[in-house]
Amino acid sequence: MPHIRVPENLPGIRGLMAFRPEVVGPLNALVDVLLRTREGISPGERELIAAYVSSLNDCYYCQTTHGAVAAAHLGANADLVQSVKRDYKLAPISEKLKALLAIAALVQKGGKSVTAGAVKRARSKGATDLEIHDTVLIAAAFCMYNRYVDGLDTWTHRDAELYRSRGAHVARVGYTSANQELAKAPVP
Amino acid sequence: MPHIRVPENLPGIRGLMAFRPEVVGPLNALVDVLLRTREGISPGERELIAAYVSSLNDCYYCQTTHGAVAAAHLGANADLVQSVKRDYKLAPISEKLKALLAIAALVQKGGKSVTAGAVKRARSKGATDLEIHDTVLIAAAFCMYNRYVDGLDTWTHRDAELYRSRGAHVARVGYTSANQELAKAPVP
Repeated sequence: MPHIRVPENLPGIRGLMAFRPEVVGPLNALVDVLLRTREGISPGERELIAAYVSSLNDCYYCQTTHGAVAAAHLGANADLVQSVKRDYKLAPISEKLKALLAIAALVQKGGKSVTAGAVKRARSKGATDLEIHDTVLIAAAFCMYNRYVDGLDTWTHRDAELYRSRGAHVARVGYTSANQELAKAPVP
Repeated sequence: MPHIRVPENLPGIRGLMAFRPEVVGPLNALVDVLLRTREGISPGERELIAAYVSSLNDCYYCQTTHGAVAAAHLGANADLVQSVKRDYKLAPISEKLKALLAIAALVQKGGKSVTAGAVKRARSKGATDLEIHDTVLIAAAFCMYNRYVDGLDTWTHRDAELYRSRGAHVARVGYTSANQELAKAPVP
């Protein structure tokens, strides 16, 4: 049972957003900027970073939600998402993305854990300042979203098909739009 | 030297915001909602939670900035801010705020560290669902801001008077407005 009284049947962050509508705009706008920008690494790669950090923080709702959005962006490739979460070093992804995931893992430990060496390595694999910046902020942001969702002990479902279909929809329209639709006709 | 090339002489998050203007709106809007709401615990108490979590994350820029804003809200009481950062259990603050700071410290460790007992205790000291919610999200948000600022190894100054005067200004006008003024006439 969640630590506070939120609307029933709304999983994860969505119950919290219904409880506190004032935070919905900034929280959705932030992921729309960070995860849907088409400059530098792709939306699918950005979602992989979000899902990976969420798995390091052991947040079921966020890693499954963003894993589903990542898979949708990457040609319905759920296996790729699993392989990144299992061991990204062995996953069939670019060396640049591996170096950025290494930075994300350091951010998850703490801001001061990020080393000049890890940044230099990412740069040597072709990462730009914008990609390094966005990787750090995506990883930092999911240290927030994960703590928000689990810190209030939110409920979530385990229906893989529901995550998949919702992930495909969010990949198409984005977080702000998907949330506005739900506010009009809420469904789990 | 910061890990990426940001404008010189802009401390902490402000250099990063100048580098990536697309994130400024959501990041400022989020702190304006969380730290300036007048429902439940006061803006000064909200800033104390932000400064305390930033001190747990050892983020000099954020703990000093939000400590200065907290002090401004609380009648220029910098000693109170120091006593909370040193050991909030001994600080001259309400039992409710102490119980909320205990929750914030658990969030800083990780979302799953927050216990039903800690929430129950806060409720027994008079905390509402909104105050518990906002405490969790403030603490989670500073786990983001701190990682963002330190994860990119930003520069900051150590001029106490500059933190104090800027803190007083932000306490008056808020984060979004203060930032918009700076964008027109940037000063450290």
